[in-house]
Amino acid sequence: MKNFSEYFKDTFLFNFIVVFAILATAIIDGAQTYNLSNSTLKYIDILDDTIMSWFIVEMFIRIVSFEKKLDFFKEPWNTIDFIIITFCLFPSNTIDNILIFRIIRIFRVLRLFIIIPKLRILFSSLTKSIPQLTYVGIMMFIIFYVFAAFGSHYFGDINETLWGDIGISMLTLFRVMTFEDWTDVMYEVMEVYNIGWLYFIVFIFLTAFAFLNMVIAILSNGLSEETHPDTDNQISEIKDELELLNKKLDMLLDSKC
Amino acid sequence: MKNFSEYFKDTFLFNFIVVFAILATAIIDGAQTYNLSNSTLKYIDILDDTIMSWFIVEMFIRIVSFEKKLDFFKEPWNTIDFIIITFCLFPSNTIDNILIFRIIRIFRVLRLFIIIPKLRILFSSLTKSIPQLTYVGIMMFIIFYVFAAFGSHYFGDINETLWGDIGISMLTLFRVMTFEDWTDVMYEVMEVYNIGWLYFIVFIFLTAFAFLNMVIAILSNGLSEETHPDTDNQISEIKDELELLNKKLDMLLDSKC
Amino acid sequence: MKNFSEYFKDTFLFNFIVVFAILATAIIDGAQTYNLSNSTLKYIDILDDTIMSWFIVEMFIRIVSFEKKLDFFKEPWNTIDFIIITFCLFPSNTIDNILIFRIIRIFRVLRLFIIIPKLRILFSSLTKSIPQLTYVGIMMFIIFYVFAAFGSHYFGDINETLWGDIGISMLTLFRVMTFEDWTDVMYEVMEVYNIGWLYFIVFIFLTAFAFLNMVIAILSNGLSEETHPDTDNQISEIKDELELLNKKLDMLLDSKC
Amino acid sequence: MKNFSEYFKDTFLFNFIVVFAILATAIIDGAQTYNLSNSTLKYIDILDDTIMSWFIVEMFIRIVSFEKKLDFFKEPWNTIDFIIITFCLFPSNTIDNILIFRIIRIFRVLRLFIIIPKLRILFSSLTKSIPQLTYVGIMMFIIFYVFAAFGSHYFGDINETLWGDIGISMLTLFRVMTFEDWTDVMYEVMEVYNIGWLYFIVFIFLTAFAFLNMVIAILSNGLSEETHPDTDNQISEIKDELELLNKKLDMLLDSKC
Repeated sequence: MKNFSEYFKDTFLFNFIVVFAILATAIIDGAQTYNLSNSTLKYIDILDDTIMSWFIVEMFIRIVSFEKKLDFFKEPWNTIDFIIITFCLFPSNTIDNILIFRIIRIFRVLRLFIIIPKLRILFSSLTKSIPQLTYVGIMMFIIFYVFAAFGSHYFGDINETLWGDIGISMLTLFRVMTFEDWTDVMYEVMEVYNIGWLYFIVFIFLTAFAFLNMVIAILSNGLSEETHPDTDNQISEIKDELELLNKKLDMLLDSKC
Repeated sequence: MKNFSEYFKDTFLFNFIVVFAILATAIIDGAQTYNLSNSTLKYIDILDDTIMSWFIVEMFIRIVSFEKKLDFFKEPWNTIDFIIITFCLFPSNTIDNILIFRIIRIFRVLRLFIIIPKLRILFSSLTKSIPQLTYVGIMMFIIFYVFAAFGSHYFGDINETLWGDIGISMLTLFRVMTFEDWTDVMYEVMEVYNIGWLYFIVFIFLTAFAFLNMVIAILSNGLSEETHPDTDNQISEIKDELELLNKKLDMLLDSKC
Repeated sequence: MKNFSEYFKDTFLFNFIVVFAILATAIIDGAQTYNLSNSTLKYIDILDDTIMSWFIVEMFIRIVSFEKKLDFFKEPWNTIDFIIITFCLFPSNTIDNILIFRIIRIFRVLRLFIIIPKLRILFSSLTKSIPQLTYVGIMMFIIFYVFAAFGSHYFGDINETLWGDIGISMLTLFRVMTFEDWTDVMYEVMEVYNIGWLYFIVFIFLTAFAFLNMVIAILSNGLSEETHPDTDNQISEIKDELELLNKKLDMLLDSKC
Repeated sequence: MKNFSEYFKDTFLFNFIVVFAILATAIIDGAQTYNLSNSTLKYIDILDDTIMSWFIVEMFIRIVSFEKKLDFFKEPWNTIDFIIITFCLFPSNTIDNILIFRIIRIFRVLRLFIIIPKLRILFSSLTKSIPQLTYVGIMMFIIFYVFAAFGSHYFGDINETLWGDIGISMLTLFRVMTFEDWTDVMYEVMEVYNIGWLYFIVFIFLTAFAFLNMVIAILSNGLSEETHPDTDNQISEIKDELELLNKKLDMLLDSKC
């Protein structure tokens, strides 16, 4: 059994069925948001059950293909996969939890990450740039915090909806950062405080500046890895060889004298 | 005949007439969208017929200039060219298809790609960055899909026009990604779900992050090609030469002993 | 005393309390913008006083840890820190100055820059790109100035609020640069001057062009530092070594003859 | 006289007065857009006349400092300078041309380019990236043209103001490219053509793609120049030296045999 599953797991047919099944669930989940006739819904339910059965078979094949069965759960993606499928097996007939179960089903699309290795590589390369962003993130947060506190103290009486408390103020500032109708917000403030434009211009410049540096952090990370990964290594190799040449020449010169 | 066409095809006069004719069709097509007097329209029609005649002559010269006439169609751009011109020759007197024929005529501007080689090079260099984008594209689609499904389930009752089904939801999310009046969409949702802002902020951060990585993919591709195309080659050449030097010195030392 | 403070200053416990206290002030300042019951406010006031006491103790420990006490003020961040804390100690019972004191308290979050060295490094690396931006900034200002003067002369009568004087015109142009409802501004102008779109398109292209070059200025600064910091040094080292080899060979050849 | 002017032209005092005078004209021009009392206007007029006198003196000093007086006009910036100042000397008492003269006066700020060499360098480095942009520009224009022609044919009846003729359609498409209320334009079209969103999404992707490549063109130009300007030169120098070493060793080996 194990040998067969191990072999079958890597065939083209297996992978094709897996991707096909995931895309089918995606289409089914999408279709259910449209208004469909009852008979169509019935067919969809049957199709959904078939796919779920396949998912269980597929997971079984995958688990069995491991020598030690529990090694399957060492890979975090597999664990996530297992949890999603387990959740989808619970009955969802009550109206209370039907929405929650529908949402969990949507996450079945995330199974694509488990099947397509390139996506997993891409994902892990994305996460690599996160630590570089942490400190720029903290800086950005401090900028937002100071401006939001300032805004909620001074502009709170002008427009409760936009500057009511520090939380809403931060949301408003995020809106300003995306340039979404930010002049409306500014003109309203300027009617009370003439100098109000200064607050917005300074904020936009500061965040744009911090954002630009965030981009550079990611860019320089992404670029330096791609271009010339080993030029430095090669140059030090050249230097080693030159030193060797030098020593040999010294020997020659010594023998000469 | 063939020799003449082969020679004539590369003269400055030929190329000048070709570019001039294409620009003339562009101006004619553009002019027809303005309200013009009947007499002007008549002149335009005559001019259009003249240019079409020239296009046929031009294509004939091009085909004849090939040794084997059918080699002309080996270049995809030539085939596209041939199809566009053939379509434009069909009569378009019925009102039913007049619009379709007008549109096909607009594509005559694309003939510039056939005439100006630099544009063709640019186009092919653009297409080179597409494969790198495929997987980021799939990732982006998964993000859109999950959020759209979530949105259409929960926000469908709030605004049918924006979140009615999964297709419309994806269009709405694309709008949010371009920051186009996205706060209007968010405030509407927040009236029902207080926590609604989280959905939008998370979505914006995820897509911005994925988009940034898409840009890096194209950038690093474009940059690494431009800068230092052959530094690596040259360094390995230097290494080879050093090795040769080393061998010769060894020979010298050997002869010494 | 000094020895103890010097030692204690670098313990994990000390740094943990410091960061914890700063974050606590941030939460307190944020909480005060919400509507709170009087009893909660009283507890917050007590907490605030405790933190302020800690800040004074902390600063005392820091100052004492220096051999020469006044060396503490040589670091600009320390001086800023000292000023912020001193200001927060003033009583703020009168309604007149309560807002000002609240704002100064917000700046206590900036103390994070003093505690987390990585943030200070990031900040100083950001400021490094400023000189490169100065001249692009001057250029940008000239573009804004010329267009704003032009706009206030010609469009001043169309809309006093947007083009009234050169100051407001510059603010309007900044809005156009961020693409914020810029077509509303343009359509209004185009009702009087048909050619008005030219003004806006040219302005957008010029500023986008200048902005792009600003980004390149920062990018090339950031990137060139990260990638290959010392390739050039190493190459010149290789050249020196080659010259040495050459000289030795010359000596060998000389001895030969 | 010439010797004195030549010497004086490069003193700090001269440059200081020049920059100060230009900034003064900028402030005067800006001030005139505000509502000022008649007496202030009179003072401003006197100040303006003083500065204009200085500009004439300054230009005279500059011209005289050249050995051959007409060499002054060989530098294009000097010619522009001369034209601007000449124009400003014409009387502007009639209401008809007062606006035109005011606008010409604004261009006096451009004299900063003549005085500050760094600005001139920056400007010429900007213009260097223009040729690289030409073909991307042509491509962009073709995309705009085809979509605008299509738009004016199909959507012309939906909204005359946005899609009336091919010129207005291109302006509307530029607006869509800047994401300025583009969904309003789209939703209007979608009421007639359900599939209308495809037109906009395809257009946005095409232009974003072309724009990104434009940015890369400028970036790779700017970056490759900054980083490692002469690495390639140095590597070929190293290779030359290695060849020389090789020859000498051959000579040694030859002499040995």
